[in-house]
Amino acid sequence: MKGFASDNNSGVHPDVMSAILEVNTEHAVGYGGDEVTARAEALFQRFFGEKSKVFFVYNGTGANVIALQAMTRPFNAVIASETAHINVDECGAPEKHSGCKMLTIKTPDGKLTPKLIQQHLHGFGFEHHSQPGVVSITQSTEMGTLYTVEELKKLSDFVHTNGLFLHMDGARISNAAAALGCDFREITTDVGVDVLSFGGTKNGLMFGEAVVFLNPDFAGHAKYIRKQTTQLHSKMRYIAAQFEALLANELWRKNAEHSNRMATLLAQELEAVKEIQLTQKPEVNGVFAIVPSHIIQPLQEKYFFYMWDEARNEVRWMTSFDTNEDEIKGFVAEIKRLLQ
Amino acid sequence: MKGFASDNNSGVHPDVMSAILEVNTEHAVGYGGDEVTARAEALFQRFFGEKSKVFFVYNGTGANVIALQAMTRPFNAVIASETAHINVDECGAPEKHSGCKMLTIKTPDGKLTPKLIQQHLHGFGFEHHSQPGVVSITQSTEMGTLYTVEELKKLSDFVHTNGLFLHMDGARISNAAAALGCDFREITTDVGVDVLSFGGTKNGLMFGEAVVFLNPDFAGHAKYIRKQTTQLHSKMRYIAAQFEALLANELWRKNAEHSNRMATLLAQELEAVKEIQLTQKPEVNGVFAIVPSHIIQPLQEKYFFYMWDEARNEVRWMTSFDTNEDEIKGFVAEIKRLLQ
Amino acid sequence: MKGFASDNNSGVHPDVMSAILEVNTEHAVGYGGDEVTARAEALFQRFFGEKSKVFFVYNGTGANVIALQAMTRPFNAVIASETAHINVDECGAPEKHSGCKMLTIKTPDGKLTPKLIQQHLHGFGFEHHSQPGVVSITQSTEMGTLYTVEELKKLSDFVHTNGLFLHMDGARISNAAAALGCDFREITTDVGVDVLSFGGTKNGLMFGEAVVFLNPDFAGHAKYIRKQTTQLHSKMRYIAAQFEALLANELWRKNAEHSNRMATLLAQELEAVKEIQLTQKPEVNGVFAIVPSHIIQPLQEKYFFYMWDEARNEVRWMTSFDTNEDEIKGFVAEIKRLLQ
Amino acid sequence: MKGFASDNNSGVHPDVMSAILEVNTEHAVGYGGDEVTARAEALFQRFFGEKSKVFFVYNGTGANVIALQAMTRPFNAVIASETAHINVDECGAPEKHSGCKMLTIKTPDGKLTPKLIQQHLHGFGFEHHSQPGVVSITQSTEMGTLYTVEELKKLSDFVHTNGLFLHMDGARISNAAAALGCDFREITTDVGVDVLSFGGTKNGLMFGEAVVFLNPDFAGHAKYIRKQTTQLHSKMRYIAAQFEALLANELWRKNAEHSNRMATLLAQELEAVKEIQLTQKPEVNGVFAIVPSHIIQPLQEKYFFYMWDEARNEVRWMTSFDTNEDEIKGFVAEIKRLLQ
Repeated sequence: MKGFASDNNSGVHPDVMSAILEVNTEHAVGYGGDEVTARAEALFQRFFGEKSKVFFVYNGTGANVIALQAMTRPFNAVIASETAHINVDECGAPEKHSGCKMLTIKTPDGKLTPKLIQQHLHGFGFEHHSQPGVVSITQSTEMGTLYTVEELKKLSDFVHTNGLFLHMDGARISNAAAALGCDFREITTDVGVDVLSFGGTKNGLMFGEAVVFLNPDFAGHAKYIRKQTTQLHSKMRYIAAQFEALLANELWRKNAEHSNRMATLLAQELEAVKEIQLTQKPEVNGVFAIVPSHIIQPLQEKYFFYMWDEARNEVRWMTSFDTNEDEIKGFVAEIKRLLQ
Repeated sequence: MKGFASDNNSGVHPDVMSAILEVNTEHAVGYGGDEVTARAEALFQRFFGEKSKVFFVYNGTGANVIALQAMTRPFNAVIASETAHINVDECGAPEKHSGCKMLTIKTPDGKLTPKLIQQHLHGFGFEHHSQPGVVSITQSTEMGTLYTVEELKKLSDFVHTNGLFLHMDGARISNAAAALGCDFREITTDVGVDVLSFGGTKNGLMFGEAVVFLNPDFAGHAKYIRKQTTQLHSKMRYIAAQFEALLANELWRKNAEHSNRMATLLAQELEAVKEIQLTQKPEVNGVFAIVPSHIIQPLQEKYFFYMWDEARNEVRWMTSFDTNEDEIKGFVAEIKRLLQ
Repeated sequence: MKGFASDNNSGVHPDVMSAILEVNTEHAVGYGGDEVTARAEALFQRFFGEKSKVFFVYNGTGANVIALQAMTRPFNAVIASETAHINVDECGAPEKHSGCKMLTIKTPDGKLTPKLIQQHLHGFGFEHHSQPGVVSITQSTEMGTLYTVEELKKLSDFVHTNGLFLHMDGARISNAAAALGCDFREITTDVGVDVLSFGGTKNGLMFGEAVVFLNPDFAGHAKYIRKQTTQLHSKMRYIAAQFEALLANELWRKNAEHSNRMATLLAQELEAVKEIQLTQKPEVNGVFAIVPSHIIQPLQEKYFFYMWDEARNEVRWMTSFDTNEDEIKGFVAEIKRLLQ
Repeated sequence: MKGFASDNNSGVHPDVMSAILEVNTEHAVGYGGDEVTARAEALFQRFFGEKSKVFFVYNGTGANVIALQAMTRPFNAVIASETAHINVDECGAPEKHSGCKMLTIKTPDGKLTPKLIQQHLHGFGFEHHSQPGVVSITQSTEMGTLYTVEELKKLSDFVHTNGLFLHMDGARISNAAAALGCDFREITTDVGVDVLSFGGTKNGLMFGEAVVFLNPDFAGHAKYIRKQTTQLHSKMRYIAAQFEALLANELWRKNAEHSNRMATLLAQELEAVKEIQLTQKPEVNGVFAIVPSHIIQPLQEKYFFYMWDEARNEVRWMTSFDTNEDEIKGFVAEIKRLLQ
């Protein structure tokens, strides 16, 4: 049965699986030298601009640490939200791979602002301090919230004015673009993001993410960094084909819109349940809520999901491209039953 | 058209693809907490012994650097053949991830012996020298050669007697076991290998390798190391299902035996071609040969393959689970045609 | 002229210099194999207990990163105060050398408590999170405050009960011991500190700090870590002789008591100056104060010292073993003159 | 009694000690912001050219790994002689700090040539291979041999023509310059060395080496790298004063010429001893010799020295600035006595 644990608990979208099956013929040059990869790379360039350069990798942590290594030297610091995936969910991979210090910011909704970032902008040129080099934001955030285009532009300008560069963890960038009614470009290239980790797995792929260098200055060494980071796949066509399927025919948007809609539905259905208190505005495909503690375990026995903040009984419910309305309604019905 | 570049230029075996399709239903707990992964782990334990512990990863470089990190501290040295994949084909990933020094050994056939290893066994306790900690061997080797069970036993005893530990890069361990007519255990657990990188991609998988801790002392931190190394897959069932298919019904052996047989056939067919000189005994699925320089480029235009040693016109021809007899014969015919 | 910038702006104590001159004869085995080093090591063992083991190094950052490397693996996290030297003043050396994540804690006086540490004690066994491994405290703190013996004992018990280990950055441990009227043992070995960075340079040495392993379990690889960290001195006798001078005849205590007394005097003299507001209780040799902004620059022109928090005009004034009463009085007189 | 183990077993030259005593007054800004350091830096600029930039550090391993970090990214390879200090005597510090692979070259006299380097110049642009980035040579070499000015020029041209950069480990550069009758510039800046590790400790200092960036392109981040590498001294004036003494009045040359002369004398005296076979031409201050095995231990009981190659009874005898003729003669007399 489907749960609400994570959008990576879902399977592979049928169109993506078909694309995989289609390329499973004969031999192909390894490590990305094949035609499928060439096509997928061209597609990314079409979506992100002619100067952009994409590198396919295995997973999100891989994408993030490649991006950060390309953008920094070990004496730099990376500024991120305290709740950022790179800070809390990668077992210290960013520090280990890049050698950099992580400077974190407490923020109620997972979003950074120029004002919040300001606290870490000092010590430039002072050799005792790690030198701030990169601001990393997540779009949509780990809290299910969104940066608007205007917020991104303002943030990007602020970051560059201060001599830093902007990384975007886009593990759920499709959900963001769908929610904002944008194309990818409008929330990345056009606002001045330097390097993007583009997510695939959480939007219907079997495996595969991409590092997209919008600022080509950082792409020069990326192929070596990808290899040394253990993120270069030999049978690359199987990643490339998935991305082709995702980007063609707006599948990325359909999947994302659907999962966003399911979260909205869930939030709406919960409005009537006074014992449940939403803690974040559900802007994409996640619902964060404080729930009476006695129903949590029985509910988890039927539907797998994670606690977000045990101290205050806050849970996280994620919807996926394959979540359907009946499942949402069944879930809410079960919540109501347990609350009686 | 199929070439002879590498066994990773081939596609996915149909049985493996079926297994993938079969698990593509509903939701599953991520990161290996699902039932398919539990089954595949149990299967590995059956193949490698009850005390063994397996961790699924993305690729060979990932498997190797996780194994080495688990077995060393940064002040250690890893002893390996000069031609070892960890030394020449991982863009320095072992040094970067483990911090260790690589001590290499020139060897004509890619195989290490106690006598060869002896040259690096000094400086123990001397703080100025990296402390030898691990010997890493490749079975079958990068030169298409094989360690016999006896050689492995002798090597393993030597390594342990000297206070070091034994890592085996088994990117092509199926080819080795098939060629030796052994089960995996007989050339790993039973001879005293401590940690094994078990290859899947080169034997018909889409993606996926495994780190198998035969010596469980090194497994304690492996899950953190895998995550921090960026090698933990979220939708793990798709790796696990492939391994289930590979290990069930001896598919691993059928694939490996077939590709070994194709290399033997190629070598046999070439015996009659006096202009071609084999440089290694083709014990598994690779043929190494010195070839008249003028035919190399025209041959590569039809069949993709790599130069091994440009200086002496040595080429490497790899066969795969899907190479067929007609292809071998067509290839040899083309060689003969070009030589006329 | 002397300033109040740091206790490392002072020179070398005459007794320490004499000790250096005394060992400057003939040849001595390098890297610590000499008699002077043997004597100094024995002295440390006398001060810290028979099971302790000392390693002499160049500087405090070196001592800290050797200690942390010996106590952790890269997937661990180190918990420290936000104002800890290892967090803010080592240009990210702890992250770079150990690969670990730093988990920081906001604390008004630079001191950690079990309650404050508790916020980071979660995610044990969860591979996505860096595993908390070490708590690092500074005695005396970077804010000029002190842990009492009871506080240390409680902290150490808490740390060990939770399966972590305790590192103490003792760059100014002599000031702490002097202020508490203790021997070193009472605030390190006896309370359960596992590894200590013992400071020398800030208490009258020319160069030289020491890593003292009170818990000998962590000392096994220390000599390799010291060498690989670039902290092994060849002409070791010149460090050892300085430590001999410092530990003999209680020079360490005399120097520390004197500099502590000078800070107390400074604080007392400032009590009468209503425009100056002390921000920390001056328990050792530092005085932290909020000062009218218009006098800061003119005062700095005469006396070198650092801003601590520019946003609120907070300055740090450090006294040293060679600060004298007249200098304190002259400094306060100048402050008063500028305030008129 | 003096031995022949290493030029770092000697003490501190009286002029250097005087310089230390002279700066031991009052306070000075820490970390190199003082006047003595400014003077020493200016002196280095005078010796190495206006564009050069010097950074003082603690020891040779520190200087080398700072230089290599400044010149490389982790996916690079560093090419060096198999006997290079960075390869055998730094416990893997170069790999650990820089993340780079070390590519070594067997060479009978410790010297590299374009022809020898050529073997590692391949795989450019091939992401599977560490990218050759730096050639590191030692002047004078660890085998007591010397590069001539012409050899250096040829080597440097070759290195740059191939897109690499040249690092020189000058732990004994004074001995080299003295032996060649050159100024430092002629064998560094003028021949195209990019970064130099300048040795002090082996030529009469108490502690202190320097990284000299002759190619200023690499100096931009050096201050952060030095700090993060744990090589920034707080009481910098004590290093700077020693370098001032060493460079003023040609003390560096006097010391080096003297120790070179003592090695020459030793070699001459040994000519008459037919049981002793020199294995290297003693061009600076080291004598390498194969010695009858039965005299080694008794000789070591009186004079401390190291085995170089146990397998063939090869020893290394180093002379120092303070070795005198009587000591050489006494040593040779003892050898003769033991041989009788």
